[in-house]
Amino acid sequence: MTALPRTLSPDLRSWVDSANDPRTDFPIQNLPLGVFVHHGSDDARVGVAIGDQIADVRALIDAGLLDALDPRVLDACKATRLNALMGLERSSLRSLRLAVSDALSAEGPIARDAATQARIVIPAAEARLLTPAAVENYTDFYASIEHATNLGSMFRPDNPLLPNYKWVPIGYHGRASSIVVSGTEVKRPLGQTRDGEQPPSFGPTARLDYELEVGAFVARGNRQGERVRIEDAEDYVFGFCLVNDWSARDIQAWEYQPLGPFLGKSFATTVSPWVVMSDALVPYRVPARRRAADDPAPLPYLFSERDQAEGGLAMVLEVSILSQRMRESRMDPYRVSIGAFNDMYWTTAQLIAHHTSNGCNLRPGDLLASGTVSGPTKDSRGSLIERTWRGSEPLTLSSGESRAFLADGDEVIIRGWCERQGHRRIGFGECRGRVAPADAI
Amino acid sequence: MTALPRTLSPDLRSWVDSANDPRTDFPIQNLPLGVFVHHGSDDARVGVAIGDQIADVRALIDAGLLDALDPRVLDACKATRLNALMGLERSSLRSLRLAVSDALSAEGPIARDAATQARIVIPAAEARLLTPAAVENYTDFYASIEHATNLGSMFRPDNPLLPNYKWVPIGYHGRASSIVVSGTEVKRPLGQTRDGEQPPSFGPTARLDYELEVGAFVARGNRQGERVRIEDAEDYVFGFCLVNDWSARDIQAWEYQPLGPFLGKSFATTVSPWVVMSDALVPYRVPARRRAADDPAPLPYLFSERDQAEGGLAMVLEVSILSQRMRESRMDPYRVSIGAFNDMYWTTAQLIAHHTSNGCNLRPGDLLASGTVSGPTKDSRGSLIERTWRGSEPLTLSSGESRAFLADGDEVIIRGWCERQGHRRIGFGECRGRVAPADAI
Repeated sequence: MTALPRTLSPDLRSWVDSANDPRTDFPIQNLPLGVFVHHGSDDARVGVAIGDQIADVRALIDAGLLDALDPRVLDACKATRLNALMGLERSSLRSLRLAVSDALSAEGPIARDAATQARIVIPAAEARLLTPAAVENYTDFYASIEHATNLGSMFRPDNPLLPNYKWVPIGYHGRASSIVVSGTEVKRPLGQTRDGEQPPSFGPTARLDYELEVGAFVARGNRQGERVRIEDAEDYVFGFCLVNDWSARDIQAWEYQPLGPFLGKSFATTVSPWVVMSDALVPYRVPARRRAADDPAPLPYLFSERDQAEGGLAMVLEVSILSQRMRESRMDPYRVSIGAFNDMYWTTAQLIAHHTSNGCNLRPGDLLASGTVSGPTKDSRGSLIERTWRGSEPLTLSSGESRAFLADGDEVIIRGWCERQGHRRIGFGECRGRVAPADAI
Repeated sequence: MTALPRTLSPDLRSWVDSANDPRTDFPIQNLPLGVFVHHGSDDARVGVAIGDQIADVRALIDAGLLDALDPRVLDACKATRLNALMGLERSSLRSLRLAVSDALSAEGPIARDAATQARIVIPAAEARLLTPAAVENYTDFYASIEHATNLGSMFRPDNPLLPNYKWVPIGYHGRASSIVVSGTEVKRPLGQTRDGEQPPSFGPTARLDYELEVGAFVARGNRQGERVRIEDAEDYVFGFCLVNDWSARDIQAWEYQPLGPFLGKSFATTVSPWVVMSDALVPYRVPARRRAADDPAPLPYLFSERDQAEGGLAMVLEVSILSQRMRESRMDPYRVSIGAFNDMYWTTAQLIAHHTSNGCNLRPGDLLASGTVSGPTKDSRGSLIERTWRGSEPLTLSSGESRAFLADGDEVIIRGWCERQGHRRIGFGECRGRVAPADAI
């Protein structure tokens, strides 16, 4: 690994006090980007999370703190979604990150200028966050071999893992229009299901589930017909967020053959509002998951030394449930699972090299989700269907309530963070969504 | 059926002579919308196909011929894609159609005004056509029971049609970014395939195929969480085009379990440039395909009397191949199949009611493709894998060349039209694409 840029120095501190709290997700080393609307305004603006505040990037520009940047970068910063920023070259993004870091630094030009500071940051509590990018294309992968094996064991006990799994990074196109930002209510969907040999019927799903995932936003895209080599693939990742790929298991089970998931997923997908840039994640890069001795080596188009050496990401993920009763009793959310992103069988670079291997074009702001992050232990399973083994081993929440699948009023809360000895812990914020009751049929 | 609007009168004639030729796809009764760039210009404009000419809608506005329309309609007409137009209310679209019909009519205000005429139309040969809408979401259905049965017979001889088929309008999310307009070359994709028990390998597809489909563009959309009832579903269809859903059968066969088609399809999907509005298709509405006596009735959310009575469309579809050798010998394309859109098991209204039944939101300009249109006879099979029965019964082209799957240099040409006694025949133009050789690995 090369020397750390100064934006990542663990000693760096901000004039925003809350950013120096060791428990914050958003120290000055993180600087994730998002889009916010200040209460009482209609104006969507690019912002940077810093402690419990948001730095308004337009205000940084107006204060002359980003004057060293290229005008194209400044234009992209004035957009109402991150797509234009995401499409900039890596060097421009680095300059932006450096300039924002300097502006917010306790050693920076406005560290003692309270008047300018007041124009630049607003309390996060006073803002509404939007979906960070206009996602034109959403791809959902299936990169956890434990998840694939768990699901396969339930549906095909004799043959849990299909023969293609260890060769092909399996994925499918998800529905882009129904991506919503954390905090958006998710209505229990209606759909067609079949119970045993009864004729199918139409009604609310009885098996509403979440899937704990990590999303990668595409940076610059590739032209149609030109593939991205695995050696270059990391340059195509702008950054990462948290994803809840809501799933109606009964609708999915009845519809999915032979063309895959459709209405069992397309009612909603929730993303966290803050995108942690790849450049903030350098300290947490680790080797790719080691394959078992009898696993095949990746085909050459999916293999690079560098990706094997540092294509993994040491990121911890947890999912909690807060039921209506728990909310009313002011209880804390109940942690259902905790897992490691680095348990994934395929790296993000492998997903990109595979996705573009046929010439499929990616665009800035496209979302590539990892698929459910499940690890080898029971408490690292990233969906309820796995955690409760299709409902046969229901969970007991801290309120004493039992859960096989999600109930109306349940809020699902996903959190993720990276930590490593000698570095500041950085977090991804939250990806939350509460289940609202179904409409009448 | 209600009385025909005057735009559909079979006696209506245009001052554009070629529009009165009975062989044209684009008589004045049709008036399909598209987006064109005049040679030598960079300016994308909304146009209407009329005979062998294109009427420039901006020029119609400038000539004062659309003055009766709402300013919002005129704004939408000035956009560089049809999405804004597609999102207008049905009544606005009818007013636009009526105003364009009057402007181009042999009885209309400029029928004898050669100077104004010259400002309004340009020869289609002098324009390049663009993808008509910026497609944010592309869904591909599987609505031909013959196609599903043919494919199933090859892959699961004992159980060709899966148990969900007659209950659920099966579909999946396609890749939106790689949609291209007719005339765009399609490069033979690379991909991972497996031959029998050999280890998989990476290289050019050896089984490149087309799929003959019809696409419906979504008009106004629905809000997330609010479904579209089947009684209202037709109002959500702006119009129709032709689609070639290119498929690499060997890539698809190895990747598709359990999450459906991905890279076997996502390298390219070709659409025809002209969108025939639903209002032009009124004379060709026919009853939905009759279900067999032992087929289940559609569930209530997929059933309406009106849809059963007039939810079908009497549209003929054909696909031809023009090989490199045929092109060099100036031969005509060889017709591989001819079929009827009304052979589909599910109507377009059923597809929309199903798609939104879980609250999934559709947006103006979204594309819903029908899936391969295959009929009960051999010569109505809409893909090569069906037509050559997985290559076991190769076709002989008129040049004497043999085809199991597509060869480099082959151009696939899809055409479609509606005709009915007592009405003008209207056509959908062409959806063409030529296969270019694969890149080196």
